[in-house]
Amino acid sequence: MDEPAIDDQRPDLRTATLAEAGEFGLIAALTDRFPSAEHVLVGPGDDAAVLRVRSGHVVVSTDLMVEGRHFRREWAEAGDIGRRAAAQNLSDIAAMGGRATSLTIGLAAPADLPAAWALAFADGFAEECAKVGAVVVGGDITRAEEIVIAVTVLGACTVAPVLRDGARPGDVLALCGRQGWAAGGLAVLTRGFRSPRVLVEAYRRPEPPYAAGPQAAEAGATSMIDVSDGLLSEVGHLAAASGVAIDVRTDALEVAEPLHAVGAALGADPLGFVLTGGDDHALLATFAGADAVPEGWRVIGSVGEGAGVTVDGAPHEGPTGWVHF
Amino acid sequence: MDEPAIDDQRPDLRTATLAEAGEFGLIAALTDRFPSAEHVLVGPGDDAAVLRVRSGHVVVSTDLMVEGRHFRREWAEAGDIGRRAAAQNLSDIAAMGGRATSLTIGLAAPADLPAAWALAFADGFAEECAKVGAVVVGGDITRAEEIVIAVTVLGACTVAPVLRDGARPGDVLALCGRQGWAAGGLAVLTRGFRSPRVLVEAYRRPEPPYAAGPQAAEAGATSMIDVSDGLLSEVGHLAAASGVAIDVRTDALEVAEPLHAVGAALGADPLGFVLTGGDDHALLATFAGADAVPEGWRVIGSVGEGAGVTVDGAPHEGPTGWVHF
Repeated sequence: MDEPAIDDQRPDLRTATLAEAGEFGLIAALTDRFPSAEHVLVGPGDDAAVLRVRSGHVVVSTDLMVEGRHFRREWAEAGDIGRRAAAQNLSDIAAMGGRATSLTIGLAAPADLPAAWALAFADGFAEECAKVGAVVVGGDITRAEEIVIAVTVLGACTVAPVLRDGARPGDVLALCGRQGWAAGGLAVLTRGFRSPRVLVEAYRRPEPPYAAGPQAAEAGATSMIDVSDGLLSEVGHLAAASGVAIDVRTDALEVAEPLHAVGAALGADPLGFVLTGGDDHALLATFAGADAVPEGWRVIGSVGEGAGVTVDGAPHEGPTGWVHF
Repeated sequence: MDEPAIDDQRPDLRTATLAEAGEFGLIAALTDRFPSAEHVLVGPGDDAAVLRVRSGHVVVSTDLMVEGRHFRREWAEAGDIGRRAAAQNLSDIAAMGGRATSLTIGLAAPADLPAAWALAFADGFAEECAKVGAVVVGGDITRAEEIVIAVTVLGACTVAPVLRDGARPGDVLALCGRQGWAAGGLAVLTRGFRSPRVLVEAYRRPEPPYAAGPQAAEAGATSMIDVSDGLLSEVGHLAAASGVAIDVRTDALEVAEPLHAVGAALGADPLGFVLTGGDDHALLATFAGADAVPEGWRVIGSVGEGAGVTVDGAPHEGPTGWVHF
């Protein structure tokens, strides 16, 4: 039986749309881009992947990103959107005190999306994963009206996972990582500007402090969360889950110099970016006392009896972060 | 400090839209619906779930469903769409010879989607998962123009996972489960009809033979896949991955009686539903000989040297299954 010479009919993925590339052509090209790892017993291409788990447990989280809502193609290149998609998921594992090992990607996209966009997205995604030694082990692609990216991340902890509900009165609240930078960059982009470049880059390429998650867990953090939607709203999650009150001290927050420039230009309080901005994926954790706070973390508040979040002892007016509906 | 009386402001989820219900209200209502299980160390509500893994490995798969492409709200109730979303993922684990334990759900949906739809979807999803003892351990919700459902399923195998690439010349090809029923039901619905009811129900509520996956693995299946997109296209995946030729014998295929009625009414060959239909999630596997085929499986073809798929010894004309782009 003669086999068709399919090589000759393969579309050029540098210029093809997803429809022209076809599901299987695109999957083959994507799979080629993803490195494997020792723990991957069966990688992409079968009904499911099979991963070795030595720790006796797996930490798992899922996030969605929708075009026009979580990203805009005109505001960031495909590779950077890939980095952000990976970063927000890797950060969820860090926020448990864990290390990510494996991810799956679901990509729903219009038929006319350039295949090159999907490939560049995959490259950026894989690069971000490589920062923590994680790899892509599977996925799905289908047609849709708008781009929806669904990522699931798996990982493991070396000590007990740090939950949101362990903060106790007397604990201190600490922050690790840049905070407010991405929100400043987004505010700039939203108004059609491209500078300060350092903030725009912070939005396009967040640098979550992945290693600080396990570091905090080993240091005995009593609760932890990553700042995805806004500092105050995440502090609110810790307070609600733990059944405590948390006060944030603004004099302890670092307002980066370029945020002052953006605040002046836009007529906004630069502290607002820090208090309500998300997307940097800084880590927030509570510790039993200032002595327990590890290097690289900054004490920004305190935990008390009661409920809710206060800023410098007073209720905060206005939004506390991103609203999904 | 006084706490706001949030209970009084809670929207009625029986009548609210997603936007009115709000992200956190909806998540709380959804989480309440999902039972837990002994292996779930940390369930929904933190940055990630934590699952106990005793087997030393995890089997993982991801699938997307898009409204208008994979389902239509006018063709099936929310609970049935939830069942199908779960079924197609649970089936991927069965096709490795495994048992599913845990799932995450990502739901991107318009702001005006009734919250009741999402809750009914979740109920159906959880019911289907309960068939195999699996539970929902996490998820994400966000706003989008159309409904996109992203599911990731985790599971484990008790014997070595059965891949697609192990079919060898001399093996027999066998099928377990209904095949073509859902395609017949979909053909009926597409044309605006609602009967034969048994086929419409088969489309709305697939009954994948979950237990047949581990059964085949224990019986020494050499390769296995589930029929998601079409019988012949899935046989093609087995043939390509294994580097063999596979012939399907139509006289061995069961063409259910109602498919004859639909074929006659629509002027279509009822065998077409069986050969190219998906969505029933029947299982296809190869075994070293007819003696190795376990009870409940039907031999429908044979594996030989070469490449590609034939039907009764001849190439098949026309589509072999569902095309995603």
